[in-house]
Amino acid sequence: MSDTRPARLSALRDALARANLDALLVSSLPNVRYLTGFSGSNALLVVTAKECVLLTDFRYATQVQEELGASASVRIESTSLWTGLWAQLAALNGVERIGFESMHLLHRDFARLLAQGARWSWRPTTDLVETLRVVKDAGELAHIERAVAMAETALRHTVPMLRAGLTETAVAGILERHLRDAGSEEFPFATIVASGPRSALPHARASDRVLETGDFVLLDFGAVAAGYCSDITRTFVLGRASGEQREVYDIVQQANSRASGALRVGMTGMAADAIARDYIDARGFGEAFGHSLGHGIGLEVHEAPRLARIVESPLAAGTVVTIEPGIYRAGWGGVRIEDDVFLSDAGPRVLTGFPRALHELS
Amino acid sequence: MSDTRPARLSALRDALARANLDALLVSSLPNVRYLTGFSGSNALLVVTAKECVLLTDFRYATQVQEELGASASVRIESTSLWTGLWAQLAALNGVERIGFESMHLLHRDFARLLAQGARWSWRPTTDLVETLRVVKDAGELAHIERAVAMAETALRHTVPMLRAGLTETAVAGILERHLRDAGSEEFPFATIVASGPRSALPHARASDRVLETGDFVLLDFGAVAAGYCSDITRTFVLGRASGEQREVYDIVQQANSRASGALRVGMTGMAADAIARDYIDARGFGEAFGHSLGHGIGLEVHEAPRLARIVESPLAAGTVVTIEPGIYRAGWGGVRIEDDVFLSDAGPRVLTGFPRALHELS
Repeated sequence: MSDTRPARLSALRDALARANLDALLVSSLPNVRYLTGFSGSNALLVVTAKECVLLTDFRYATQVQEELGASASVRIESTSLWTGLWAQLAALNGVERIGFESMHLLHRDFARLLAQGARWSWRPTTDLVETLRVVKDAGELAHIERAVAMAETALRHTVPMLRAGLTETAVAGILERHLRDAGSEEFPFATIVASGPRSALPHARASDRVLETGDFVLLDFGAVAAGYCSDITRTFVLGRASGEQREVYDIVQQANSRASGALRVGMTGMAADAIARDYIDARGFGEAFGHSLGHGIGLEVHEAPRLARIVESPLAAGTVVTIEPGIYRAGWGGVRIEDDVFLSDAGPRVLTGFPRALHELS
Repeated sequence: MSDTRPARLSALRDALARANLDALLVSSLPNVRYLTGFSGSNALLVVTAKECVLLTDFRYATQVQEELGASASVRIESTSLWTGLWAQLAALNGVERIGFESMHLLHRDFARLLAQGARWSWRPTTDLVETLRVVKDAGELAHIERAVAMAETALRHTVPMLRAGLTETAVAGILERHLRDAGSEEFPFATIVASGPRSALPHARASDRVLETGDFVLLDFGAVAAGYCSDITRTFVLGRASGEQREVYDIVQQANSRASGALRVGMTGMAADAIARDYIDARGFGEAFGHSLGHGIGLEVHEAPRLARIVESPLAAGTVVTIEPGIYRAGWGGVRIEDDVFLSDAGPRVLTGFPRALHELS
């Protein structure tokens, strides 16, 4: 596959020119990775119209050479990256107005810019790189599809193991082992295993609760391939589902498939959210769907665009989003069904193929 | 065990009074958890001389009630926590000068304080809560010891499975499955499995590299119990160790045991670091130990104090730190041996009991 980094840097440079900036200080690690390929946990990147300089520390001296190729020049700093930054900036000619990433810079480091970096003019920016990341190229989509396949393979191997008596933590262990065996590089977020009444907690992680017959068992997890994430949720019933469980499950499943199928390029995040929300509302559970419909996935498991009530920007062709309606009733339980969907001018393509019909585990 | 939260809040209030602040806005989630018990992923906390108000969102409505008890009053915000914050602050009488956490507030949110929060006077603070967290109470130490036991149980089950032909990722899966079976709530950081030349990469995670006879196999991982972390590293040799491998291993092992044994309350972080560093230097590998000796562990896997060349503050009684010297030679491999050590006036107590002698895996 051809090296996509020059095109990404070129697009960023266009954005810098439009914003009348001489340079951007990139402190978001996923943004650094997108632009250079560097996957380490400590880096600062400076992009000017002509230069691209990455600063990192000793621990990554070998790795950074392997990952960067010619995409950026590298400085290994023995103490603080910030100390190195002032020296690098001083060596760059004609750089005066420098953007920084307001969403990815701590106040402590902002204070450094105003103190030790006072000879430059610092401008807050938002989403300059994130905007580029919204539209996935063929290579990125392939990575996400691989991460989806890993997650679904792991789930297929895990479902037959689910039974009363296991703790949620043990279930997480089974699932994660299969994610690793499928090749997942890491876990994009803490695996959620939420059973019985805990399935009503939308961000429950896994606890020492023991699975019981009659429980909803909600699994929300993902895999990572070449840095790209998948994010999938399925909710099962341990034993026979009650009428109430069937009803709630059916509403969530309908909301999921209606929203997935109706996604279109140009639709606003708000309109997408409303497809699922209005349906759940009409079925009488509007109050019980308290989070938004979905979010972009890519190098981060939560990235632009958002599918939420307050989002007025239109969906772009080439984006990958989650569709994850849910109904949560405190003390009783909850259901969420989450798919990953690639959106193009040809319409939506659901990447997650794992069955969504109610599955009663025997 | 008695509720330690009132004492923690009281100590923080003393610190606020000394800093001449009416309130602290806590945005660090581990700090929120330390003060209130809340373990969710979205919260703001306001602590005044008399009040303690926690803001979170819908997803945590049930969980927050279970976790907080009487430690703080709770507001569930339906949109942004920040919108709710202004209303809460307006309801607090006599609050004018408010500290914020400079190390845990993004520039974007700092800009909110100056814009929508302009009627209050905002002061950057550092480490007000972190300083309290340095000294662990009996309950915290017990959680860390439990997290250490989980990690060691998992390692004992994993070592017999290590063999040529496995990928690093598969090894991570085996280890993580046993961590879960031992009850670990989550993984405090991405598991490092680094084999052969990759063991020279101090932050290598796990890759699809296949283990080969003659490799160093470095495992750096941890467990979490009640929010508290362990962090342990052992390095094995797959098959018979070469003379060079034995020599490097012996130096690291000696540096580890010398540093662990010599830790004392009142010693500076710099002095602790020097014990291992000077020894490795004297044996001719000073250049190859490029990171610092260790760090505190607790609710975060990296917290105060640091054991590093530039740290002049003395070690407190009741702290738990890692001791993790290493030697890394690019292209050849590396060794790191990491223990968790509780330091009291009685001296150091090494919590990690897993054998440190060179282990050749057959």
